[in-house]
Amino acid sequence: MTTFGELAPPVRVLMGPGPSDIHPRVLRALACNTIGHLDPHYLELMNQLQQMLRQVFQTRNQLTFAVSGTGSAGMECAVVNLVEPDDVMLVCVNGVFGSRMADVAARAGARVVTIQRPWGEVFTPEEVEQAVKTHRPKLVGIVMAETSTGASQPLEEVAEVVHRHGGMILVDAVTSLGGMPVLVDQWGLDVVYSGSQKCLSCPPGLAPITFGPRAVEVIQNRKTKVQSWYLDATMLSQYWGDERVYHHTAPINMTYALYEALRLILEEGLENVFARHLLNHHALRAGLEALGLEFTAQEGHRLPMLNAVRVPEGVDDATVRKELLERFGIEIGGGLGQFKGRAWRIGLMGYGARPQNVLLLLGALEQLLAEQGHRFRPGTAVATANEVYQQQQAVSAS
Amino acid sequence: MTTFGELAPPVRVLMGPGPSDIHPRVLRALACNTIGHLDPHYLELMNQLQQMLRQVFQTRNQLTFAVSGTGSAGMECAVVNLVEPDDVMLVCVNGVFGSRMADVAARAGARVVTIQRPWGEVFTPEEVEQAVKTHRPKLVGIVMAETSTGASQPLEEVAEVVHRHGGMILVDAVTSLGGMPVLVDQWGLDVVYSGSQKCLSCPPGLAPITFGPRAVEVIQNRKTKVQSWYLDATMLSQYWGDERVYHHTAPINMTYALYEALRLILEEGLENVFARHLLNHHALRAGLEALGLEFTAQEGHRLPMLNAVRVPEGVDDATVRKELLERFGIEIGGGLGQFKGRAWRIGLMGYGARPQNVLLLLGALEQLLAEQGHRFRPGTAVATANEVYQQQQAVSAS
Repeated sequence: MTTFGELAPPVRVLMGPGPSDIHPRVLRALACNTIGHLDPHYLELMNQLQQMLRQVFQTRNQLTFAVSGTGSAGMECAVVNLVEPDDVMLVCVNGVFGSRMADVAARAGARVVTIQRPWGEVFTPEEVEQAVKTHRPKLVGIVMAETSTGASQPLEEVAEVVHRHGGMILVDAVTSLGGMPVLVDQWGLDVVYSGSQKCLSCPPGLAPITFGPRAVEVIQNRKTKVQSWYLDATMLSQYWGDERVYHHTAPINMTYALYEALRLILEEGLENVFARHLLNHHALRAGLEALGLEFTAQEGHRLPMLNAVRVPEGVDDATVRKELLERFGIEIGGGLGQFKGRAWRIGLMGYGARPQNVLLLLGALEQLLAEQGHRFRPGTAVATANEVYQQQQAVSAS
Repeated sequence: MTTFGELAPPVRVLMGPGPSDIHPRVLRALACNTIGHLDPHYLELMNQLQQMLRQVFQTRNQLTFAVSGTGSAGMECAVVNLVEPDDVMLVCVNGVFGSRMADVAARAGARVVTIQRPWGEVFTPEEVEQAVKTHRPKLVGIVMAETSTGASQPLEEVAEVVHRHGGMILVDAVTSLGGMPVLVDQWGLDVVYSGSQKCLSCPPGLAPITFGPRAVEVIQNRKTKVQSWYLDATMLSQYWGDERVYHHTAPINMTYALYEALRLILEEGLENVFARHLLNHHALRAGLEALGLEFTAQEGHRLPMLNAVRVPEGVDDATVRKELLERFGIEIGGGLGQFKGRAWRIGLMGYGARPQNVLLLLGALEQLLAEQGHRFRPGTAVATANEVYQQQQAVSAS
């Protein structure tokens, strides 16, 4: 019989598209002694978790909880609860996760129509309105932070347009939540889901989700059962709500971790968290541009937490990522879909959004790109990033 | 703004229907530093996890992995991959989890037929054959260890009968896997799923699953897409297989925990693990019977790891469970469905299947039942259990 060795994962600096670096307090929380999913202490913890999720989603939505699965389970939960067979759903596709949403919706029996944008670009309210007028969808799905391209989709006007024509808006905030404002109530978003392993800096395994009043009404008036028992929001709401009806055994220890991760965010304050993501993004961006790297997302619509850049001519994608990992312990992401082999995706998410990570990555990239024969002014990347931090220090001190 | 307190779950002895007591090594594994879901080290860990799962399932099935959700997600994964709309599925219902399976299958578009047995009883091969002859199902679903009643369903002959008539058998082994033999290959089971939080003694959040050759063939020849993107076994197999195609972000730290939990089981040896569950069951059973408690499952078909007994006349269910929890830190389960308020479900699962737990529970029950005015010979419960352990010691020493 084979023997299996002691668990000894190498120490990594997680600067890919997630999972992100985890704060030690979150890992400690994860290892707390397990209790039952109907234990009074656990039920109280669920209440508190919901309160914290509402703060992070900036919503008063009662039906706000964590799906017992990763971000993609959150996507599926959002879709299958709102869609009934033959409902029209419009999906805005400008990257991998929009495509995924269209696939999920079609599997749920929706009549899916899509509008497309080149990867890296975002949708205007006008083009969404045009499609809504044409197709009269019940539901419009859109990705706020397209992790495959680094594009940041503005939502307020799009939501307004969708509502004006009687539809609902479903938003993928997997990568944005906890790293930039996701104003669920102010923007009137009807259902929004996220994942634990991005800017919330918790290990992967949970998907925060929130359903607004319109969505709840639609769910309550469904004619058919939700196709997924596991993701049925009505049944889940009876466990997360006052009834505490047993549904499935909750992932207790992951809940501990998410509790602690949210606590860290609220201790720092949402505004401070967002400012920190932006500052580190500016520093990283300055450094990457000093290395001659170009962003894939259109100017003015770049995510702070997911910096996607083109692999420069003559540089081997796989070699650079492998050496970053093996020599420096740094993980960054490769390109997905049409960007495979052509883009690097650099995450500055949650606990990972800090100067230590930015400087380390830039220093390592300076070394590896020079080895690959890529031409740039040595020493400028780290220095340029440092200038951004120093300007910030000067502003703070004044 | 509300402040949220430090995480401080009370220490519990988990003797309910799961989650079960967790070994300290598993909690330590859970808190290991997170790495990426495409990190070479993680991919190797997945390979090893699959090898260990095959040993515990006693199978050579290539398509053996852990679903990123709890046991109910495992159930849904098994069903939605094998069922296409209008397929006939026969579900054997003798408790809550059979009913759940029928619900899941109907939501997947199956034409569901059920056969029923009173709660606590099991199905004979003859009655399954009769139903199979009548309804000609593509798939027969059955629960091996019905956690709501404590009944243990024999499977070998049932599987033989189903195959003889050209069907496949889908088995819920959520509560049995790792606590009693689940001989996937020897019994010819086509798809079997479990949960991490029962006899595997890992926190809840993962669902081991295995698909046999017939099931794989059926999946490969589907005419329609699997309704769940998240649970699509073909896509999942491309991430768990050599291709390593990104699907969803794996629950890294939960995988660590399951790895360590399986390692503990294989270190002890499956046969020893099963014998330990049986021994502690015999001791607990002797003690419970000395207290005058009756099992709900039929004689000869009682699960070692889930001991369901009737709440005696004149004793208040809720009070006893509340005081067990508050005064002794012991969690046991209440009744579900038609057993609500009428049964206690006492788990001896994985790391929780040990004399310390048995003696503690019996001692506490002696005290609480006496307070409730229940009549029995004082001191006999613990003493009777100890006799069982002493006989075992004598046998081992001889």
